[in-house]
Amino acid sequence: MVELKDDERLDYLLAEDLRIIQSPSVFAFSLDAVLLARFVYVPIQKGRLIDLCSGNGVIPLFLSTRSKGTITGVEIQERLYDMAVRSIQYNHLEERLSMIHGDIKEMSQKIGFGKFDIVTCNPPYFPTPAKKEINENEHLAIARHEILCTLEDAVKASSQLVKQGGKVAFVHRPDRLIDIIELMRKYRLEPKRIQLVYPKLGKEANTLLIEAIKDGNPGLKIENPLIVYTEEDEYTPELRDILYGKE
Amino acid sequence: MVELKDDERLDYLLAEDLRIIQSPSVFAFSLDAVLLARFVYVPIQKGRLIDLCSGNGVIPLFLSTRSKGTITGVEIQERLYDMAVRSIQYNHLEERLSMIHGDIKEMSQKIGFGKFDIVTCNPPYFPTPAKKEINENEHLAIARHEILCTLEDAVKASSQLVKQGGKVAFVHRPDRLIDIIELMRKYRLEPKRIQLVYPKLGKEANTLLIEAIKDGNPGLKIENPLIVYTEEDEYTPELRDILYGKE
Repeated sequence: MVELKDDERLDYLLAEDLRIIQSPSVFAFSLDAVLLARFVYVPIQKGRLIDLCSGNGVIPLFLSTRSKGTITGVEIQERLYDMAVRSIQYNHLEERLSMIHGDIKEMSQKIGFGKFDIVTCNPPYFPTPAKKEINENEHLAIARHEILCTLEDAVKASSQLVKQGGKVAFVHRPDRLIDIIELMRKYRLEPKRIQLVYPKLGKEANTLLIEAIKDGNPGLKIENPLIVYTEEDEYTPELRDILYGKE
Repeated sequence: MVELKDDERLDYLLAEDLRIIQSPSVFAFSLDAVLLARFVYVPIQKGRLIDLCSGNGVIPLFLSTRSKGTITGVEIQERLYDMAVRSIQYNHLEERLSMIHGDIKEMSQKIGFGKFDIVTCNPPYFPTPAKKEINENEHLAIARHEILCTLEDAVKASSQLVKQGGKVAFVHRPDRLIDIIELMRKYRLEPKRIQLVYPKLGKEANTLLIEAIKDGNPGLKIENPLIVYTEEDEYTPELRDILYGKE
């Protein structure tokens, strides 16, 4: 049983045996969140994971299928936090998954420094919102623009929360690659793995996945390219596996 | 007519109507040089181009088919410089192409600051040569290891030689991406375009192409992935076009 508010729907979480509350006017998860949840290294049997800028909790829900550790989501928008809490309840995951309603900039003060094995973050992508360009829907605007959380806020908070040797993974647009690298190094996060997502073989990359290790040694690997669509505009076999599971 | 020394051969420069002197024991050009010569932006009708760590002059020779500007190659090893000079003569390109035998660290003092529209560089890839690991062949060792030229030397020299708004393009290994970005920004070269070369679709990238603009505005594009081999270990159509020309 779950209470659905306004235009909320109880969607399937793709191939997983889970459901997630979404709303077209408030928040629906993106492919980027799915790709991040699958890209990041996770400890399988135990560990403490935290997801920042969690939205409706899509990444914690996904991660719960990959790790038996405890997973915390942090979301500043009460409306989205509330959707995530109800989805966790609906899926009976309250023992391992929890949400915090709060600002990531205050999280390390609130829950402690260097306590987490893994930090994930799918932050707002758009840096300098000019008033008229901002999405008029406040929920979507906050989720998409760096209004309450800049990229530096997110990297800094991640570095404070992760333990030494722990991993921090972000998804972002490729045009912010240089900023992300510089910010990660500024906060002692050494980039170790990058994966680029290309909409098609002949196209520019439109999504960047990057994982760093706190106080790690330099040495970067660029993983195999992830191609989303075939020439015929269908999902590639690799994407189908990610979205719907191996057949 | 051209004088060939020792085990030198007069090879065809792939699809181009040019020949190049190579030697298995001294220097033969790599796919990376070909990819860089094709990746870099070039002015078509005129302009001043310079190639650092030029080896047997493969990049200047290639660039001569893409640009009508003047092209200078700089090579510190006299034996390789000499091969490049003879290849230029053989192809009757002396009016537009010239070689300088010298150290890139002294080039801007020698030929002036900020005089070039385009700088290319395929530098030695291997950073800290331990004595035993170094190639025993001195020519190959100098071309492959940072013995006479570190990555910072190459980026600094490029920045000194290029004019404001001019372009600098490097080819390197992906594991040096972060170093290259940091060095480029240190020397006022803003990375604008990256292309990654993957040996096959499911494999990690093994080559990185990067182009920066002197004093350019931030904003990076990651170009379409370049896949070298098909699943059947044949060149992909894209690579065949690059190597042998469009059919």
